[in-house]
Amino acid sequence: MLSKDRFFPADPTTRGIARRLFQEVETLPLICPHGHTDPSWFAQNQAYSDPAELLIVPDHYILRMLVSQGIDHIKLGVHPIDGTVGQADSREVWRLFAANYHLFRSTPVRHWMDHTLETLFGIEAPLNAGMADHSYDVIAEALATDAFKPRALYERFNIEVLATTDSCLDDLSHHRAIADSGWGRRVIPTYRPDIVTNPDSVGFAAGLKTLGDITGEDTMTWKGLLRAHQARRQHFIAMGATATDHGHPNALTFDLSLQDCEALYDVILTGRASAAQNEQFRGQMLTEMARMSLDDGLVMQIHVGSVRNHSASVFDRFGPDKGFDIPCQIDFVNALRPLLNIFGHDPRLTLIVFTLDETTYGRELAPLAAAYPCLRLGPAWWFFDSPDGMMRYREITTETAGYYNTVGFNDDTRALPSIPARHDLARRIDCAYLARQVAEAQLGEDEAAEVIVDLTYGLAKRAYNLDGSS
Amino acid sequence: MLSKDRFFPADPTTRGIARRLFQEVETLPLICPHGHTDPSWFAQNQAYSDPAELLIVPDHYILRMLVSQGIDHIKLGVHPIDGTVGQADSREVWRLFAANYHLFRSTPVRHWMDHTLETLFGIEAPLNAGMADHSYDVIAEALATDAFKPRALYERFNIEVLATTDSCLDDLSHHRAIADSGWGRRVIPTYRPDIVTNPDSVGFAAGLKTLGDITGEDTMTWKGLLRAHQARRQHFIAMGATATDHGHPNALTFDLSLQDCEALYDVILTGRASAAQNEQFRGQMLTEMARMSLDDGLVMQIHVGSVRNHSASVFDRFGPDKGFDIPCQIDFVNALRPLLNIFGHDPRLTLIVFTLDETTYGRELAPLAAAYPCLRLGPAWWFFDSPDGMMRYREITTETAGYYNTVGFNDDTRALPSIPARHDLARRIDCAYLARQVAEAQLGEDEAAEVIVDLTYGLAKRAYNLDGSS
Amino acid sequence: MLSKDRFFPADPTTRGIARRLFQEVETLPLICPHGHTDPSWFAQNQAYSDPAELLIVPDHYILRMLVSQGIDHIKLGVHPIDGTVGQADSREVWRLFAANYHLFRSTPVRHWMDHTLETLFGIEAPLNAGMADHSYDVIAEALATDAFKPRALYERFNIEVLATTDSCLDDLSHHRAIADSGWGRRVIPTYRPDIVTNPDSVGFAAGLKTLGDITGEDTMTWKGLLRAHQARRQHFIAMGATATDHGHPNALTFDLSLQDCEALYDVILTGRASAAQNEQFRGQMLTEMARMSLDDGLVMQIHVGSVRNHSASVFDRFGPDKGFDIPCQIDFVNALRPLLNIFGHDPRLTLIVFTLDETTYGRELAPLAAAYPCLRLGPAWWFFDSPDGMMRYREITTETAGYYNTVGFNDDTRALPSIPARHDLARRIDCAYLARQVAEAQLGEDEAAEVIVDLTYGLAKRAYNLDGSS
Repeated sequence: MLSKDRFFPADPTTRGIARRLFQEVETLPLICPHGHTDPSWFAQNQAYSDPAELLIVPDHYILRMLVSQGIDHIKLGVHPIDGTVGQADSREVWRLFAANYHLFRSTPVRHWMDHTLETLFGIEAPLNAGMADHSYDVIAEALATDAFKPRALYERFNIEVLATTDSCLDDLSHHRAIADSGWGRRVIPTYRPDIVTNPDSVGFAAGLKTLGDITGEDTMTWKGLLRAHQARRQHFIAMGATATDHGHPNALTFDLSLQDCEALYDVILTGRASAAQNEQFRGQMLTEMARMSLDDGLVMQIHVGSVRNHSASVFDRFGPDKGFDIPCQIDFVNALRPLLNIFGHDPRLTLIVFTLDETTYGRELAPLAAAYPCLRLGPAWWFFDSPDGMMRYREITTETAGYYNTVGFNDDTRALPSIPARHDLARRIDCAYLARQVAEAQLGEDEAAEVIVDLTYGLAKRAYNLDGSS
Repeated sequence: MLSKDRFFPADPTTRGIARRLFQEVETLPLICPHGHTDPSWFAQNQAYSDPAELLIVPDHYILRMLVSQGIDHIKLGVHPIDGTVGQADSREVWRLFAANYHLFRSTPVRHWMDHTLETLFGIEAPLNAGMADHSYDVIAEALATDAFKPRALYERFNIEVLATTDSCLDDLSHHRAIADSGWGRRVIPTYRPDIVTNPDSVGFAAGLKTLGDITGEDTMTWKGLLRAHQARRQHFIAMGATATDHGHPNALTFDLSLQDCEALYDVILTGRASAAQNEQFRGQMLTEMARMSLDDGLVMQIHVGSVRNHSASVFDRFGPDKGFDIPCQIDFVNALRPLLNIFGHDPRLTLIVFTLDETTYGRELAPLAAAYPCLRLGPAWWFFDSPDGMMRYREITTETAGYYNTVGFNDDTRALPSIPARHDLARRIDCAYLARQVAEAQLGEDEAAEVIVDLTYGLAKRAYNLDGSS
Repeated sequence: MLSKDRFFPADPTTRGIARRLFQEVETLPLICPHGHTDPSWFAQNQAYSDPAELLIVPDHYILRMLVSQGIDHIKLGVHPIDGTVGQADSREVWRLFAANYHLFRSTPVRHWMDHTLETLFGIEAPLNAGMADHSYDVIAEALATDAFKPRALYERFNIEVLATTDSCLDDLSHHRAIADSGWGRRVIPTYRPDIVTNPDSVGFAAGLKTLGDITGEDTMTWKGLLRAHQARRQHFIAMGATATDHGHPNALTFDLSLQDCEALYDVILTGRASAAQNEQFRGQMLTEMARMSLDDGLVMQIHVGSVRNHSASVFDRFGPDKGFDIPCQIDFVNALRPLLNIFGHDPRLTLIVFTLDETTYGRELAPLAAAYPCLRLGPAWWFFDSPDGMMRYREITTETAGYYNTVGFNDDTRALPSIPARHDLARRIDCAYLARQVAEAQLGEDEAAEVIVDLTYGLAKRAYNLDGSS
């Protein structure tokens, strides 16, 4: 089913170049510096329960498409948060998915799933209703074997390092267990403090209290709050972290005086701050995180521009991450300016920016990244982690920012089985882009061969400071 | 003149696939669910008067281009609304058009006109000054014959159903005459209430009065206004309508309480409402129209994002639709949220959205349509109903929304002779897109063959509820 | 090193068409209607000092990329404005550039520099650290010869006319010297009044005073200010100018009454105007400049959408134009409306618009230019003066505005040696675009051959009124 030339341009000359470039990187180890796999998988190494629970229910790409065609979340095995409806039968969920597989034609889900089904489970045709039960049985049988346990998959996938994303309040016990187990593979945490940097997050007040409890700092004061973050970051670093991650509605940053910070924080703590004050707090916390990075060396990532939980009814019934996060317009030029004016030229800072507004690639992000030493462009994100999306990213950012202000690929997924599929796709698109560059005599093939290794392997390792050992 | 491979990619392999896909759909009937032809044409079936009046004067694409190069509307046969200047000679208008045909190179007008000239009138070279008189005579002669009367064209074009767009105040007498004539072809109205939902429209107050008169409802009250709409929608449904259409400056919707609606409407009726209140009224009326659709089943279309009549002097001299409507930036994510939060998951609603801001395809519309069950994406609209425009639409929307959250093609034209040209072009571009998918092994050719039939025929019929009989 | 087919599509049929089209225009003279070369070069015709001073230090494209990878401006030979640090050694600057040449892969700098190195200096491989000293010596040796003096380069490049950009306060003595020298080539000034139309510009108040001094008008009054501009424009016209240029942060225009203008100007002169008042003044001055163009025939250019000097520290250390200008979102539809409503249909005005926000190409600028007679689209600008950027420009603007509402190419550079490279690239991309049009049977090859001559030569000459003699 999987063509050896998938995603390569049809023109024979260009395709030939793409093939040769791909040979340079096809078997390179996977660098996974940003994603959402669960560290407990690798700590406990238990078998996955069943095909739907592994491949369908947690995947918001799949949920959203099926829901958009009128299939209720309940039928897809999603648990209502009020607990009133029992779990759907896993086989039934799989049947629904298989019967609607045509909906995913020409979407990334299709590519990832085809790759997963064929390479992991030997299932060789596009899924359909008729294949539902057989494929379910094949997958279920495989998942019960040792070869499909999390650690075996990690090894089979030739992963060199895998970063998870973890609440700053997490005790990282799973990461400790992995380290203590003698397994010897690298699974590292990422410091994600949104719960205590975003006053709009559920659990903000409780989170601040917990943060105080686990650090012994008085997080009811501005200075105590900062010390608490510094302490937690050290804890993460001790467990191997090399980066932080910040999911903000927009890219606003601020540069307030200490006095203004303290006064603002006092208002925030009352829980009665205005929307503008919450914005200020979030933005000032980004600036503080950048300042801490100068000292402790954590690479800073910001993912901005998603209107979370757009559907109130879906959020009320099922909670977050159920396929109803929608991108919105973003301004980076003015929003990042306060932070950049302080730290933009400091060699100790690396700030990796991700966007859901493609109009910012060429107009804002590439020009900024091709000027400020601290800035790097994260890869095409989420909705744009697709063949054409990744191609647009290269076509629009490279002319201004080149290759060396980008950071390679992030699979950014909680779907462990799909990780090789995602890297395979990204590598192929980069080969396709470079092949056109070579075919049009814009770049030598020897240079392209060097670049593709960087895009696939070198840039991610260097940008995320992953050259050291865990 | 017309190449059999027009609009297909040059790469031989890809072109071969495109050809095969096109064979699947080349002769399928035309589904025309949204457009602006005049129902009187089909009711009265009179011959068209002359080439310029049919092909030039009413076409704002053509007017704008010629005007942009310094040719006055008057010379193009456009009547000033003050009646001070007589009509230009039709042959002179045609000569101006022919002499300036090079201006349309690589624009859709060129493609549509070449196709029309060759397939309808046997004129086989790009028009130019030297061909003006001969081509005028050929067309004029043809138009005088029965074979070029509106009904003959409808039949010759293999149209299966054709929707017009009609003011909600229209008595639909032409549609009735068509139905009563025994002709047996399907020409259906579309409910367009802008004149009484947009307080900024010319004739708003008079329209409300007429709406009351023809329905017997007291349209000076909010509840009476809603009942009047319900009655008119039933009238349209009785004449075959399956859809409404709403041309709004933006996508704002509101969810006001009954009390607030009544208070707002009282202010609107004074004629002294603020711009914000007019905005609210328009947005609330969209919500009310959606609510009515739940009951009566009319599919809802919204066309937003055009700054109408940008040139005051053109509007003052010649009125609307003279080539000076300009797109503007649009936000859908926040604007549609109130409506979607009420009806977004209701299986009785279909809401088809059209945009003139291509940045919203990937950032807003595809993600929304790939989540909310009610939402579908209308095809590339107006300025973007072009080879590259339609290709961008597929490239950017498909990766997120797939094919099945889109609704096929709309020709959206008042130019009856160009309808086959427009469908031909759209079908070819979709074949070209799918051919690349196949050539790059992203989709099987058997699947592509299924998809192209849907894009060409099935999706439009299903989305607009056209499966029933008239 | 330079392939004969560089930038042409790989598909053999399409490439063949591109080659044939390129043969039509490869040797046509260069029309350079907008750029930033220094008129003193041609007045004095002195040899350039050294490779770095000519090719690196003044080039903000090169500076920004090297700075973005952590190389300080100082090391690149940029002089701090406080004079505290001496000049870097030219050879060291060149070595840094050569060692980091890989950063420019697939960026326009790479294409321009490769072309310059090979065609001017016979250097035939991509630059690298190992080639630094040899290439430096070769270039330095060449620059010392007569063949590389400014006038010789102008002649060698087959330039037909070259416009510089000059402050409205400039006495144009260099232009006069060129004219008086009997050289006989055409180097013309462009009227750039930003220093006295933008209250935020450094030197605004002093500039107004100077403007009064050199014209004898009382520039402390609104009417005197306008008369002073009229006088200066006449001075420029006498020296060959055919155009003005306006670099504004946005495209806002106003149509204030005389009384409001006078009152506004009084406030502006106090130096205590609000940001909104400064905006109004800038916008009103655009309108006044358009009005003057009706009388004196100068073509008007506006370049908008750059946030200048984004990095405060770079600006404070090194001043403007050091690689830290960043594009921002722009609205043209509402902003240009006041000006267009007055002059939009006046045949005496040509207004050429440049944007750094590509989203405006299809949504705003092409629709506006394909309606208003006065409007023309400038070519892809700055960050988008790249192979893919120019291709996107054609793909998105042509379908609406055609070819004849555009104005051909601007090299827009202060880097004289790169001018042929830039025109070569632009011509090739236009050939590539047209070749696809022909290969897909969207345009006849005979028509494409006509169009490419216009895009390369005719449109620029006509749009900028360069048909007359100097």
